[in-house]
Amino acid sequence: MMAAMSEPPAQRHARVRSQSLALAEGLSEADCQVQSMPDASPLKWHLAHTTWFFETFVLEPFEPGYAPHHPAYRVLFNSYYQGVGERHPRAQRGLVTRPGLAEVRAWRAAVDARVQALLRAPPAAADGAALAAAVELGLQHEQQHQELMLTDLLHLFACNPLAPAWRPGPAPAIGAGEAADPAPAWCPFEGGLVEIGHAGAGFAFDNETPRHRQWLAPYALARRLVTQGEWLEFMAAGGYREPRWWLAAGWDWRQAQGIEAPQYWQRAEGVGAGGWHRFTLRGLLPLDLPAPVAHLSLYEADAYARWRAACEGRPLRLPTEAEWEHAAAAGAGPGLAEGNFADGQAWLALPARAGSAKGDAPLQLFGDLWEWTASSYGPYPGFRPWAGAVGEYNGKFMIEQSVLRGGSCATPREHIRASYRNFFPAATRWQFSGLRLACDLG
Amino acid sequence: MMAAMSEPPAQRHARVRSQSLALAEGLSEADCQVQSMPDASPLKWHLAHTTWFFETFVLEPFEPGYAPHHPAYRVLFNSYYQGVGERHPRAQRGLVTRPGLAEVRAWRAAVDARVQALLRAPPAAADGAALAAAVELGLQHEQQHQELMLTDLLHLFACNPLAPAWRPGPAPAIGAGEAADPAPAWCPFEGGLVEIGHAGAGFAFDNETPRHRQWLAPYALARRLVTQGEWLEFMAAGGYREPRWWLAAGWDWRQAQGIEAPQYWQRAEGVGAGGWHRFTLRGLLPLDLPAPVAHLSLYEADAYARWRAACEGRPLRLPTEAEWEHAAAAGAGPGLAEGNFADGQAWLALPARAGSAKGDAPLQLFGDLWEWTASSYGPYPGFRPWAGAVGEYNGKFMIEQSVLRGGSCATPREHIRASYRNFFPAATRWQFSGLRLACDLG
Amino acid sequence: MMAAMSEPPAQRHARVRSQSLALAEGLSEADCQVQSMPDASPLKWHLAHTTWFFETFVLEPFEPGYAPHHPAYRVLFNSYYQGVGERHPRAQRGLVTRPGLAEVRAWRAAVDARVQALLRAPPAAADGAALAAAVELGLQHEQQHQELMLTDLLHLFACNPLAPAWRPGPAPAIGAGEAADPAPAWCPFEGGLVEIGHAGAGFAFDNETPRHRQWLAPYALARRLVTQGEWLEFMAAGGYREPRWWLAAGWDWRQAQGIEAPQYWQRAEGVGAGGWHRFTLRGLLPLDLPAPVAHLSLYEADAYARWRAACEGRPLRLPTEAEWEHAAAAGAGPGLAEGNFADGQAWLALPARAGSAKGDAPLQLFGDLWEWTASSYGPYPGFRPWAGAVGEYNGKFMIEQSVLRGGSCATPREHIRASYRNFFPAATRWQFSGLRLACDLG
Amino acid sequence: MMAAMSEPPAQRHARVRSQSLALAEGLSEADCQVQSMPDASPLKWHLAHTTWFFETFVLEPFEPGYAPHHPAYRVLFNSYYQGVGERHPRAQRGLVTRPGLAEVRAWRAAVDARVQALLRAPPAAADGAALAAAVELGLQHEQQHQELMLTDLLHLFACNPLAPAWRPGPAPAIGAGEAADPAPAWCPFEGGLVEIGHAGAGFAFDNETPRHRQWLAPYALARRLVTQGEWLEFMAAGGYREPRWWLAAGWDWRQAQGIEAPQYWQRAEGVGAGGWHRFTLRGLLPLDLPAPVAHLSLYEADAYARWRAACEGRPLRLPTEAEWEHAAAAGAGPGLAEGNFADGQAWLALPARAGSAKGDAPLQLFGDLWEWTASSYGPYPGFRPWAGAVGEYNGKFMIEQSVLRGGSCATPREHIRASYRNFFPAATRWQFSGLRLACDLG
Repeated sequence: MMAAMSEPPAQRHARVRSQSLALAEGLSEADCQVQSMPDASPLKWHLAHTTWFFETFVLEPFEPGYAPHHPAYRVLFNSYYQGVGERHPRAQRGLVTRPGLAEVRAWRAAVDARVQALLRAPPAAADGAALAAAVELGLQHEQQHQELMLTDLLHLFACNPLAPAWRPGPAPAIGAGEAADPAPAWCPFEGGLVEIGHAGAGFAFDNETPRHRQWLAPYALARRLVTQGEWLEFMAAGGYREPRWWLAAGWDWRQAQGIEAPQYWQRAEGVGAGGWHRFTLRGLLPLDLPAPVAHLSLYEADAYARWRAACEGRPLRLPTEAEWEHAAAAGAGPGLAEGNFADGQAWLALPARAGSAKGDAPLQLFGDLWEWTASSYGPYPGFRPWAGAVGEYNGKFMIEQSVLRGGSCATPREHIRASYRNFFPAATRWQFSGLRLACDLG
Repeated sequence: MMAAMSEPPAQRHARVRSQSLALAEGLSEADCQVQSMPDASPLKWHLAHTTWFFETFVLEPFEPGYAPHHPAYRVLFNSYYQGVGERHPRAQRGLVTRPGLAEVRAWRAAVDARVQALLRAPPAAADGAALAAAVELGLQHEQQHQELMLTDLLHLFACNPLAPAWRPGPAPAIGAGEAADPAPAWCPFEGGLVEIGHAGAGFAFDNETPRHRQWLAPYALARRLVTQGEWLEFMAAGGYREPRWWLAAGWDWRQAQGIEAPQYWQRAEGVGAGGWHRFTLRGLLPLDLPAPVAHLSLYEADAYARWRAACEGRPLRLPTEAEWEHAAAAGAGPGLAEGNFADGQAWLALPARAGSAKGDAPLQLFGDLWEWTASSYGPYPGFRPWAGAVGEYNGKFMIEQSVLRGGSCATPREHIRASYRNFFPAATRWQFSGLRLACDLG
Repeated sequence: MMAAMSEPPAQRHARVRSQSLALAEGLSEADCQVQSMPDASPLKWHLAHTTWFFETFVLEPFEPGYAPHHPAYRVLFNSYYQGVGERHPRAQRGLVTRPGLAEVRAWRAAVDARVQALLRAPPAAADGAALAAAVELGLQHEQQHQELMLTDLLHLFACNPLAPAWRPGPAPAIGAGEAADPAPAWCPFEGGLVEIGHAGAGFAFDNETPRHRQWLAPYALARRLVTQGEWLEFMAAGGYREPRWWLAAGWDWRQAQGIEAPQYWQRAEGVGAGGWHRFTLRGLLPLDLPAPVAHLSLYEADAYARWRAACEGRPLRLPTEAEWEHAAAAGAGPGLAEGNFADGQAWLALPARAGSAKGDAPLQLFGDLWEWTASSYGPYPGFRPWAGAVGEYNGKFMIEQSVLRGGSCATPREHIRASYRNFFPAATRWQFSGLRLACDLG
Repeated sequence: MMAAMSEPPAQRHARVRSQSLALAEGLSEADCQVQSMPDASPLKWHLAHTTWFFETFVLEPFEPGYAPHHPAYRVLFNSYYQGVGERHPRAQRGLVTRPGLAEVRAWRAAVDARVQALLRAPPAAADGAALAAAVELGLQHEQQHQELMLTDLLHLFACNPLAPAWRPGPAPAIGAGEAADPAPAWCPFEGGLVEIGHAGAGFAFDNETPRHRQWLAPYALARRLVTQGEWLEFMAAGGYREPRWWLAAGWDWRQAQGIEAPQYWQRAEGVGAGGWHRFTLRGLLPLDLPAPVAHLSLYEADAYARWRAACEGRPLRLPTEAEWEHAAAAGAGPGLAEGNFADGQAWLALPARAGSAKGDAPLQLFGDLWEWTASSYGPYPGFRPWAGAVGEYNGKFMIEQSVLRGGSCATPREHIRASYRNFFPAATRWQFSGLRLACDLG
């Protein structure tokens, strides 16, 4: 499941682990304690659970004379691994005030030191490749939780009427030229018998494999994500009140929840955009009309596509994950190496991105927002979960969830790749999720 | 959406409509009134709603001087067509005791007479093909509800501790030879670039189109459905208690609902099979070990496949809908014309079926049980819903449901075809649903 | 628990039992089958359960060679008597379509015949007084269910958008003189050390005993019930929108349920009273402003009293049950014997009642509406439940319910008495419940 | 609503306020942040809300040139006073991580200083008596929340599988002589026309007034509370499995919640008492058989009384609040002045108390456990709520709650008095609640 990384493993381990602590800087023990909804977790829990992962999957099998740091933590900080044993109920993670934040940090430090010792002098009996693979899996897992720390913190702060900011300050300015782009341009693809999925070197999760063939009809992808300004048009056109744009389950959800706008949008004092503002990790900000609209459910994304298709009289829809990956992997747009991905955490208030790429390549593929696709999350043909408890990582969630592709401004840059499959239920909105339109051709 | 049927339309209309009333024979007004759960509907409602469909989509657009039979029925018996206007809440269908059953029957008769008049002498101004298409859609819709009448009645009777029977009497006897078949044989398919979906003459729903190409890796399908006897083995092996076989959502569902056996299985006095019996439309019957196991959720079907794969050390799983259709459409097994489909309603207690087909062709494809697939229900590439309110028929449900293929013993025979896509949420059990295993090859 | 009735027991038994069937005249099997909410029961169930009561508490202990009519009915039609054994779940009463209505009627007839035989020739071994007491309890129980048959039917019909009527036709006309009575007059009582509760001859439930002393401060009761016209004033004054009039639990209930008017009030086409109408057993009728307002929760009744107290600057409130009984029992108003109670079932649409009583005696005490009191339902000092399973009749409900006094237009006349204690949770509205104001004096 | 206290007001204010902070000593910011259930509140919220009370009801009306410390706190820390305006939703109190604990403490200090300034030099324009009354109400309110801080903290810690202790250490030892007391002795009272309720000097809440007459039949009270040992007998006798001892609502609650023992009782390793332990603010402790049993619902207390009555063949039951107050106020037992009340917070693990009182006076009336009574919480005859927003303090909760009397080991000693009326719904268990039996005499 992994391949060699150019960075020395011990250095990489130290760097990635420290990044989790950096995210918590400036937060109080209370900020790190609270669980604002069952789907979210306390930041302290994230710090503890990622440590549990290393203790369980690295130290326990590889460390000679292994003994647990605290025997109760094995149950307390297990997330969903039935193969590891009992678990503390998910919805009660926020009730565990002891161990406190300082104790969890101490546990992190102790486990990190033991992992570092292992990496620097692996015992002869240990299978070096297996140890490296386990550590790398732990770091990939850590990076997933780094994104969740931000999404969960945003949800928590949004529950506070005082609207606190994680990193106060202005969002990056928008290039003037971009704001003039009224409609997305389209990037066409011929399709045919293509291959998707991970193969070769580099880490990938089991759910990205095996690489396999798939037939695609000709299609086009929008050059950029749907913007906040376009979303205002949808709202002004009564998009949230008209059942014909909505999937039946989406309409029921919308009515039951009273949904009228993207999550974290709220009306506040101020001119423009009908008074709409958006709550971000930088606090409450006015809309940024040319920037992508975020925190959408799949239901909303899908309704938008239907409405837009009717407006334009064209077969617009969400892309499938195969269409998306084929476009992204074919080098159709600027990749990570080309700098399309900016310093993620500076962008958490989602300004419009510079369209540096020339020609008709899709923009904003990586590092802005996770993009909802029309694909349900399921196994690739020939899929085999990893052996052991880590086989629960992905496979057992392959029902009634939808795939998101790309990676958001909250995703660590090195955690992003074209074959990555993120997945959430269709009603999910607290992730950094947006949409890009696709169109049938021919 | 349709093509010519060899039977004269008026005759076909009268025949299909009368079949609905035949299903209700022997039932009391009370039996036809009650809604036993929100997912089910009263039989009287089915009789009324199918009439509403003809009044709304045939009489209203095609009958000169159309006037409604009763103005309130338009709202009262609309199921989910937002395009037609308001609807009575689904969960309250059983509360409408007026109009009574006699009034609904009278409404049926009146609408039938008006449709017959239209069919026998369509007004010059009417588009004959459009009228015929609308009537045919009404009849296909009627046949879907005929199956639902049986599934909903079974659920209602199962709620009654007195265990009433719809059609008392013994289930057909099982051929002695069949009981000796201990394990399924396998039917291999090469795969490659195949086509699935409906094309050409004959009725099909919009969701079966367009016919399109899909790449399949080599696979095999089990020659027959999983049996009641095999299910007992799964139960005896602790299959319902072991989380590793289950999808995460399935395990949560199983625990919350306390599921320990297929729906309608219950322990009763009697020898054999651990005392397990199954409640059927013929009343409470002992298990029939070589007969297919029915009333499974997708979660259970999927767990069984994982357990069986581990037992046998082979990559067993549910088939995809493309694999299933490719096998069924390629004439791999005996079709409807060959008599594999028996008189459906005689079989509602699901005996084992005669394996008349020779060679290695899959059996029991049509007319036994709907077969859960591994495919989420979504649009085919290039899918366009029908225009108008009937466009709500299928497309708006394309999220968080799974596809079932084949057709059950409760499905009208002429409503069955290889391209048919049935769909329900993964937890659904009150339909006649079973499973057939698939296996990766090569 | 009972005393001699002047009517011969067998005649009384036949008369009261036949009255239940008379209430169901004109109703279909469907009307009698459906349970419109968990708190209500199907009419067929009422007919069956009252028969179960006679079979269980009369035939089983007193009939020589007793055998049950159908062994399953003992469980199927038990309501809440844990001492009798298992029970069918209350919320599933409406799902039992078999036995059908005809079978239940046949069961009634068979049990009635057996009770009649017992009453006409009690076996020598039987304790005659105990048999008579058991039969009388069965008849009192029957009369309670007669009222529930009407309240439950009203709730069911109110769920039907076609607004069916049980007994169509106009409500009785209102005397012109009454409409002119703008405000209630007051009937003062000195209080002091009074006695309440049942004693002496005549049937009473255990919860009406023992008769006991209670100290009352001076008080006054309104001469009549609060009217529909007065309720409109409360609504016009924003009574449903102003939290300060409401108990905290009442306000939460009001907001959660979106309550804006008494149950069964709805806006419809028509002039006057802001378009408000009320759904009754006679169908949808306009308001009758001088008639009492019905179908109130205790929360609404209490809020009205607080609002009225603030308007008038007087200590208005609901009466306690002791105050009510003291006034009613002291002959302060016209009693049953004086004809204040009209033919109940003619009045189900609740017109204003003739104020025939002269002087300052309270009117409308009996036979109009159950009157909410300020008293929680609890045991009288020295209360002892009846022995055996019938001890579950009243005592086990003595928590978190409030007492209503009087008797409504749906109560059988002979079931009404001054010491009678009806009880329901504070949110209950489907009963014929209204309110009378009280005022502290001195 | 108050009278002069002998302690100078400013000194009393400082002392009572500081006690709240003392309770939070040793707790982390996380411990003070979390809300473990909607009925409980975070400790930080208690510290903030009690400060809000002084700011709103003391500073705002009495301080010249009043300005709020932080304008948003008025909404954020309002509990339920509709008259003060909007409120933050109760169930979301735990989500407010900002202001942090330090900010709340700073707010406390600032408001305390301003109140102290007022008390030391009340402005000429202020009504001195009204100011003193408002401050005293704030302190009484503070003391109520001091008890809630402990009950809410206990609930939170009980949710933690690590079983943390607030104040570790052993519970006080039990005198050997007490353990030998096998059954309660009884204290008889003649009853008659008695007076209950508050009158005269000293603070009381509005719900304790007016003092009024009530007739009591002869009765007896148990000399002591029901013990943990007696509760084990009830459990061993199947008391939790036998519906006949339970109120109907209690049985439904017990079944729905799966209740098998008092709250905080759990089985753990160890000998004796069937392995039962109790979780306390001192951590997990073994049972203390002669000590009172705590954390009972009214349903459990009532069931115990019925079971005991059947065992003994005597009319045992819960006392009414009038019976309790008459006994307590008549000097029947040792009062606060006599030292029956120990240092509350030392006793939170509830050992048996020394029966120092001689003769037949009831023991343990004050300072052990709140005692459930048979009385629903309602207004006394002639009750008038206080004017203004503080009138919401008690009156609006007078429905569907039951009265508890006495005061617990978590109640500040000076907050206890014979006329005090505590009230909670019948299912409440997280308070320090127990029971004392009563018996009808004559």
